[in-house]
Amino acid sequence: MNYYEIDTPAVLIDLAVTEKNIKTYQTYCDGKGLNLRPHIKTHKIPELAKLQLKAGAVGITCQKVSEAESMLSEGGIDDVLITYNIYGESKLQGLLRLSEKCNLSVVADNVVCLKGLSKTFKEAEKPLKVLVECDTGALRCGVVTPEEACSLAKKIESMPGLKFGGLMTYPPISQQKKVNHFLETAKNLIETHGITVDTVSIGGSPNMWEVEKIPIGTEYRIGTYIYNDRSLMEREVCSEGDCALTILATVVSTPTSERAVIDAGSKVLTTDLFGLTGHGHIIDHPELIISQLSEEHACIVSDRPTGLSIGQKLRVIPNHACVVSNMVDEVIFIEGQNVLKKQAVVARGKVL
Amino acid sequence: MNYYEIDTPAVLIDLAVTEKNIKTYQTYCDGKGLNLRPHIKTHKIPELAKLQLKAGAVGITCQKVSEAESMLSEGGIDDVLITYNIYGESKLQGLLRLSEKCNLSVVADNVVCLKGLSKTFKEAEKPLKVLVECDTGALRCGVVTPEEACSLAKKIESMPGLKFGGLMTYPPISQQKKVNHFLETAKNLIETHGITVDTVSIGGSPNMWEVEKIPIGTEYRIGTYIYNDRSLMEREVCSEGDCALTILATVVSTPTSERAVIDAGSKVLTTDLFGLTGHGHIIDHPELIISQLSEEHACIVSDRPTGLSIGQKLRVIPNHACVVSNMVDEVIFIEGQNVLKKQAVVARGKVL
Repeated sequence: MNYYEIDTPAVLIDLAVTEKNIKTYQTYCDGKGLNLRPHIKTHKIPELAKLQLKAGAVGITCQKVSEAESMLSEGGIDDVLITYNIYGESKLQGLLRLSEKCNLSVVADNVVCLKGLSKTFKEAEKPLKVLVECDTGALRCGVVTPEEACSLAKKIESMPGLKFGGLMTYPPISQQKKVNHFLETAKNLIETHGITVDTVSIGGSPNMWEVEKIPIGTEYRIGTYIYNDRSLMEREVCSEGDCALTILATVVSTPTSERAVIDAGSKVLTTDLFGLTGHGHIIDHPELIISQLSEEHACIVSDRPTGLSIGQKLRVIPNHACVVSNMVDEVIFIEGQNVLKKQAVVARGKVL
Repeated sequence: MNYYEIDTPAVLIDLAVTEKNIKTYQTYCDGKGLNLRPHIKTHKIPELAKLQLKAGAVGITCQKVSEAESMLSEGGIDDVLITYNIYGESKLQGLLRLSEKCNLSVVADNVVCLKGLSKTFKEAEKPLKVLVECDTGALRCGVVTPEEACSLAKKIESMPGLKFGGLMTYPPISQQKKVNHFLETAKNLIETHGITVDTVSIGGSPNMWEVEKIPIGTEYRIGTYIYNDRSLMEREVCSEGDCALTILATVVSTPTSERAVIDAGSKVLTTDLFGLTGHGHIIDHPELIISQLSEEHACIVSDRPTGLSIGQKLRVIPNHACVVSNMVDEVIFIEGQNVLKKQAVVARGKVL
């Protein structure tokens, strides 16, 4: 079956491009002596995580406990880092169950969460590895000084059921001076207390080709590289041909010659802008702009006739690939123009 | 069970507020002599659609064929308008099946779609009612002149299997002069050809209390009024107490006294801004701002100490309620502080 026969809107995944992206970045990390730990939030599909592991990744990154549970549902994945502060009894029990199925580690940036983790794991067979999350400039989670990082590392080592697993930060690599200073200071401080810092986990897609800017990093977490998207194209991190995820849509209205409407709205493309103008890149029509979205419509405008006609199918590279995966129950794996299969997005909507 | 015991993030629906909203707006429309045809995109739950019908609504509005199929899956709904140009064989066959289960009407703004509809319905038991979609200023779908509206109405009447059902437009009521002129001119033109214009379907939430501005309207389509949201609060269309949908979230990090992070990110709240600043209204904390979202985190900032602590639960009114319903497989019906039941969001993700 040719993918042009599929009912739209549909999310297409070009498997050859996907596999190329996995291989290319694995080779890059191998060359830099950096462990690669892909974030599965981009695809949410165990089969693709296993391709990443097979290529050489050391494990996967998940953000939520339920996401990790989905990813482990079919076997074949044995190392998971959950980069999230885990709080609350049901999530802690989920974590305990996960720890029996894989080599599990989590992060924390506060004592309240550590207490919950310790209480849950104090009688477990092996201790839970906990990395200290550091805020090195992203202004999200993470301790805000190296001294706090050291204090938490000591705390982890002293608490029953827990073992200090290293430092973890989310970009910005763009603030490399600050990031390096923070991580080096924290590592030195911790090591003066006789605690080894084996892992320094860094990551992020926009700076994926600049890992040497943070030489202290031992592990790189990254999601989008497997599919790529318009935000990375615009930042010249990838090219159009590197984009594996596209949205197949049909023109359903051409009210004027300069305006057309397709059947993929924010329920597929999402309203994520990432600082860009417009809501996607239309393959073969770089001159057309997706100017506005509503839930089921996207308006395409041009200052010249669009040349589009009703029934015509278009492929759109979205601004942000990860969030598109989260909108659909299934994606379509393709090879060239051929449909290989429908694939469930197993970890879609797993927010717990 | 108290809803504060629920694992977070969770989408709570206050049933008493929901029922009050249904009743209040039905009473308003009844007073104006206007048929109410709620858009189910806000809730996507047949049970709530049936409450809307029971209160006096003439039918429901759906945007996609698959959405309508889901809504009819459990019976009790017998009148559906799909406000979308239907194109493509599988959707047309779906439409045919739907027409056997309910009083079905659709819209169209072009001859290509009309041809598909006519081909599909030419041998059906009863003709398909088709309204002409008019672009009265929203710059989305719809014919752009009253003359085109008339031409399409005549076309519909002449095509086998179809019957002209009236005119349909989406706001902006804010451009009332233009809207009225367009609709009146189109209606008069069509009637000079001996075709009756029984229905003029208008709608939209922001102007829900100003329906008399478009006196030609016979039917009002509206979605958000059942739950309301921050965008309507900010426009003073509703108050905080009218908001039935809230997101229950837990504080998982307090990196500084002026910053806290909750466990509901764009995978629940979405990045829809609707021209607002910030990503939601926190009940009991109007001074706190949700400044940035990532997929699983929302950052809360303040220029004074937030006063929030790890483990604390918050309720957030989202910018846009409809899109939040689309992010989760189930919502939690509550009454006061009590959990009534978990409810599947039956038509979630139905984009076909």
